[in-house]
Amino acid sequence: MIKLVILGAGNVAYHLTQAFFKSPNISVVQVYNRSIEAIHHLSKKTKITTNLKDIVVADVYIISVSDNVIPEIASKLSFKNKLVVHTAGSISIKKIKTTSNRGVFYPLQTFSKSKKVDFSTIPICIEAENEADKNLLNTLAKEISNNVHTINSEQRKQLHLAAVFTNNFVNHLYTMGQEICEQNNIPFKILLPLIKETAAKLDFLNPYQAQTGPAKRNDTKTLQKHLKIVPKNKEEIYKLLTKSIQKTYGN
Amino acid sequence: MIKLVILGAGNVAYHLTQAFFKSPNISVVQVYNRSIEAIHHLSKKTKITTNLKDIVVADVYIISVSDNVIPEIASKLSFKNKLVVHTAGSISIKKIKTTSNRGVFYPLQTFSKSKKVDFSTIPICIEAENEADKNLLNTLAKEISNNVHTINSEQRKQLHLAAVFTNNFVNHLYTMGQEICEQNNIPFKILLPLIKETAAKLDFLNPYQAQTGPAKRNDTKTLQKHLKIVPKNKEEIYKLLTKSIQKTYGN
Repeated sequence: MIKLVILGAGNVAYHLTQAFFKSPNISVVQVYNRSIEAIHHLSKKTKITTNLKDIVVADVYIISVSDNVIPEIASKLSFKNKLVVHTAGSISIKKIKTTSNRGVFYPLQTFSKSKKVDFSTIPICIEAENEADKNLLNTLAKEISNNVHTINSEQRKQLHLAAVFTNNFVNHLYTMGQEICEQNNIPFKILLPLIKETAAKLDFLNPYQAQTGPAKRNDTKTLQKHLKIVPKNKEEIYKLLTKSIQKTYGN
Repeated sequence: MIKLVILGAGNVAYHLTQAFFKSPNISVVQVYNRSIEAIHHLSKKTKITTNLKDIVVADVYIISVSDNVIPEIASKLSFKNKLVVHTAGSISIKKIKTTSNRGVFYPLQTFSKSKKVDFSTIPICIEAENEADKNLLNTLAKEISNNVHTINSEQRKQLHLAAVFTNNFVNHLYTMGQEICEQNNIPFKILLPLIKETAAKLDFLNPYQAQTGPAKRNDTKTLQKHLKIVPKNKEEIYKLLTKSIQKTYGN
């Protein structure tokens, strides 16, 4: 039985806590958050606290809070020979200033509290500073996911950047598609099968091979037509991404 | 029984032909293509030809070729009281110069010959110039899809633009994610659950609500970190999309 304290109650902390509750080999012995509101609903299932001085003894401490608060919270966990990890994509393992060992437990997924997630397929990127800790994190990760990877801090920073392109920026392009639809009385849901197929294709083709469209085939007539109707606030993005696709495919 | 001639053998024509072959109420009486190679495999199932003078009589002619060849091919179909349609997103119904009636039959999906598609969920956007033709196209579309919409030429042009943002540009961002992964010895497949969840979320949240990430929450520390490591050929795109997200959420 691995004893766990979870620190934080944001989207990642919330879903991690729920996932670990379901695991028979993990005991979430405590959840900390600076305000009580976000953790009050957990009081029937585990100890809760808003005071870092009351943190109990456990094997692993998972800090899942805003990036800039991680060092401060870690520094207040004055245990020895325990493992303190954070869950952030772009924060080095070295930012964890602690008297215990340190590591990273980064679930690479987009979380909203209102949307259930299936943790078993979520990649968990782990990092530790010795073999024993790596094994411990590996065991912990495998309790909730079948998709565990050892990724160092430098790679994780790059992976987080890649995630910004493929998640944050992609979602913003969805928003632009939605705006164009709404401005023309077209239901946005018409685009959903296309959007899903664009993602699903990646099981069969890599995105470089999967590229289609007027920029890829250098169809200047269609590109001109689009430039005439593209809304002002999207024109620069249309031009820049078109140019980038043309360059990529040597047009 | 609706008699159909399909003109073209590209990705859209290929998948449409396969879908209509399966429909018991549709008879694909002929497939035309300018070169024989791409249609030879159909010779056991229907008539094939490379000569526009040999086109047989049918109820509907579906022209599914490159945008710029549509007017030329339509002009050579010298039938009367038939229905000639194209399958293009950004071409007006008026570009079909024909002695017959005209219409549009636009399946809004990304097609690769190597990837099977389930036509039943693909939105088909139809347009016609009278009620009878609209009904005919509606019947035809419903034979292969449960997702049929009446969309006029102006809307269709805008929808095509929205599809460029949500499919072509999105796929290019996937390619950028793949490049960043490869340059850092990270398997790109780690990103696939995130990519799919980003698309799947749209069943529950609209993309405006679903936005997350450092640009949305104006996390300038992470943005600065990313600017230090983003590859040169992706820097401008990173900056422009970040700025656009910040503007959208009033940062």
